[in-house]
Amino acid sequence: MSIVALITDFGLSDEYVGVMKGVILSVNPSASIIDITHSIPRHDVIAGALCLERSFKYFPEKTVFVVVVDPGVGGERRPIIVCSSRRVFIGPDNGVMTPVLDGADVFLIERGWLKDVSSTFHGRDIFAPVAGLVSKGVSFKKLGRRIHDPVVLRIPKPEVKGTKICGEIIHIDAFGNAITNISKDIFEKFTGAFVIEIGEIKFYKISKSYSDVEVGKPVCVWGSSFTLEIAVRDGSAADKLDVKKGDKVVVKFD
Amino acid sequence: MSIVALITDFGLSDEYVGVMKGVILSVNPSASIIDITHSIPRHDVIAGALCLERSFKYFPEKTVFVVVVDPGVGGERRPIIVCSSRRVFIGPDNGVMTPVLDGADVFLIERGWLKDVSSTFHGRDIFAPVAGLVSKGVSFKKLGRRIHDPVVLRIPKPEVKGTKICGEIIHIDAFGNAITNISKDIFEKFTGAFVIEIGEIKFYKISKSYSDVEVGKPVCVWGSSFTLEIAVRDGSAADKLDVKKGDKVVVKFD
Amino acid sequence: MSIVALITDFGLSDEYVGVMKGVILSVNPSASIIDITHSIPRHDVIAGALCLERSFKYFPEKTVFVVVVDPGVGGERRPIIVCSSRRVFIGPDNGVMTPVLDGADVFLIERGWLKDVSSTFHGRDIFAPVAGLVSKGVSFKKLGRRIHDPVVLRIPKPEVKGTKICGEIIHIDAFGNAITNISKDIFEKFTGAFVIEIGEIKFYKISKSYSDVEVGKPVCVWGSSFTLEIAVRDGSAADKLDVKKGDKVVVKFD
Repeated sequence: MSIVALITDFGLSDEYVGVMKGVILSVNPSASIIDITHSIPRHDVIAGALCLERSFKYFPEKTVFVVVVDPGVGGERRPIIVCSSRRVFIGPDNGVMTPVLDGADVFLIERGWLKDVSSTFHGRDIFAPVAGLVSKGVSFKKLGRRIHDPVVLRIPKPEVKGTKICGEIIHIDAFGNAITNISKDIFEKFTGAFVIEIGEIKFYKISKSYSDVEVGKPVCVWGSSFTLEIAVRDGSAADKLDVKKGDKVVVKFD
Repeated sequence: MSIVALITDFGLSDEYVGVMKGVILSVNPSASIIDITHSIPRHDVIAGALCLERSFKYFPEKTVFVVVVDPGVGGERRPIIVCSSRRVFIGPDNGVMTPVLDGADVFLIERGWLKDVSSTFHGRDIFAPVAGLVSKGVSFKKLGRRIHDPVVLRIPKPEVKGTKICGEIIHIDAFGNAITNISKDIFEKFTGAFVIEIGEIKFYKISKSYSDVEVGKPVCVWGSSFTLEIAVRDGSAADKLDVKKGDKVVVKFD
Repeated sequence: MSIVALITDFGLSDEYVGVMKGVILSVNPSASIIDITHSIPRHDVIAGALCLERSFKYFPEKTVFVVVVDPGVGGERRPIIVCSSRRVFIGPDNGVMTPVLDGADVFLIERGWLKDVSSTFHGRDIFAPVAGLVSKGVSFKKLGRRIHDPVVLRIPKPEVKGTKICGEIIHIDAFGNAITNISKDIFEKFTGAFVIEIGEIKFYKISKSYSDVEVGKPVCVWGSSFTLEIAVRDGSAADKLDVKKGDKVVVKFD
């Protein structure tokens, strides 16, 4: 069975996501369609790209991802297929594909659209039917032509400055955990004592799990993407520590 | 694989929708179950009907739709199967099926229920098992008898008065876009200059896409259902223009 | 097709649930994955247990349930498989499995994990891959060893005191209906006139359905779990009657 996985900013209160699934199944009735999330903040292309980056590797090879955070729908931006990491990514060429563009084959989508294409819902009219076709094995070349200049966005990455790692909070999850972009790989290039600073908040150790501290207390752990995560045990770091997306996080080694 | 598509006002925070799926799969383990939406405003039968109208044609033929917006559950209203447009629709006979009743075959559901039927959850006890049976190919006649008087509700339609089209906003989507019931078909019966009025707001043109205007500016486009849609680029028309469901929209031609 | 059903407190706004599904499908591409709910109140293990209790019997035998309400993730609590009622339940050993422990076979999960196990997301790293394996038919014994001391939590049960049944509200659903733990089975052990009291609110009868009363009026019915439910017709009992989870409900027989 072919898997089609969806990331959008459509929310679930309208019929939009359901209708996209109807179109995919009209083209490929045996597709297995999985929601990654539809709660990307509206029009936040970078947030969509970061979500894609955190999730795609956990899906099987050959999965077809449809990634629609598309404020420019109906305008000049191009619809594309990205073939990368043995998976396929379909969506607008507005930078949302940035995390999977490295070494990728990219195709402009020129065919495979629904007959009537609206100017406001290419998720349904272009990306869904093309995902159905690709998941059925239709070759990219039948759907369009190769391009070499996809849009690349700056994804916030940590910087190393001497013995400091300067990163930031890139996501607050629904638990109120603050996810940073400081990975274990970068951290482990240093040794010795350190302090982690987010504004006035300081951590002198990275705990093994949330439950290493008392309920209600702040804790710094390696999170699920193996980056530094600031949490409050059984509570919300966003609320209790007043941290938010974009806040600077600095690790200073002795 | 047989497709069962769900529209309800149950929300996703309780186990209700999941349990309906469990029942469907207990009857037909190979059903592919798709959520259209579960966020129809509570007890809003017209909103459910409009959602059904906007979505069903995008699903394959033979799809079995379960549409449960059912404030009269457990009372006198009848459970029905509607066979229409080469698709099947299962739910309460309270008018939610109005958009698919034209030329339809309608059956009262008399059999196929769970053994214990509650008075509060026919989605689980009647509609889900019957959807499982229908999706497996059980004939309608085995499940009940034909009826000829299903409940029809008045769906708000635009009226043409001389050179004016008088419609209304029928839905505010999660982006804050205001969807009207004025279709391209009706609009194109007229020619010449026009003004579109929603209260004090006026549009003199229909833009090709949201990105035809600057960020934060109002724009009128043909929306995803090919009806007039009032939007704000990268923003919410509902918030910025203070428009809401039920507001009158008038197109005046010269 | 093997069915995997999910209950978590992860919400749907992050990619967490989608990523769990990606892992399950990576292990068992033909799994049919169903969401029961992901809106268990954060870290509320009892609420998760009650949701499981209300839902599991509506799923086919052999369904594999993944139940992740797991405030102790990464700490000392054990990951377990519970084999009970001809179904399988996978999750943390923190009491969330209480409703299915009676007469169950319980196994500690020692193998079948992802290669890199985070300390914050065992839903993805332990429970999802093990669910994939179990749904493919891998025997429990290959995944771990039998244990005999799973954690049991006190689930609130009604007490009979003379001619009184003393229960409580155990859940407010998204409609605002107040679900109690007083079952029809217990109620029917008594006969004669009765009064149902929730604080100052009194009911002298159990109605057949919501529509037995006028719109906006309070009504007491047998709810979908065949326990007493306090509702307001076409409205919210939680809002209009000011009732909440934990409120005492007493049935007094003459």
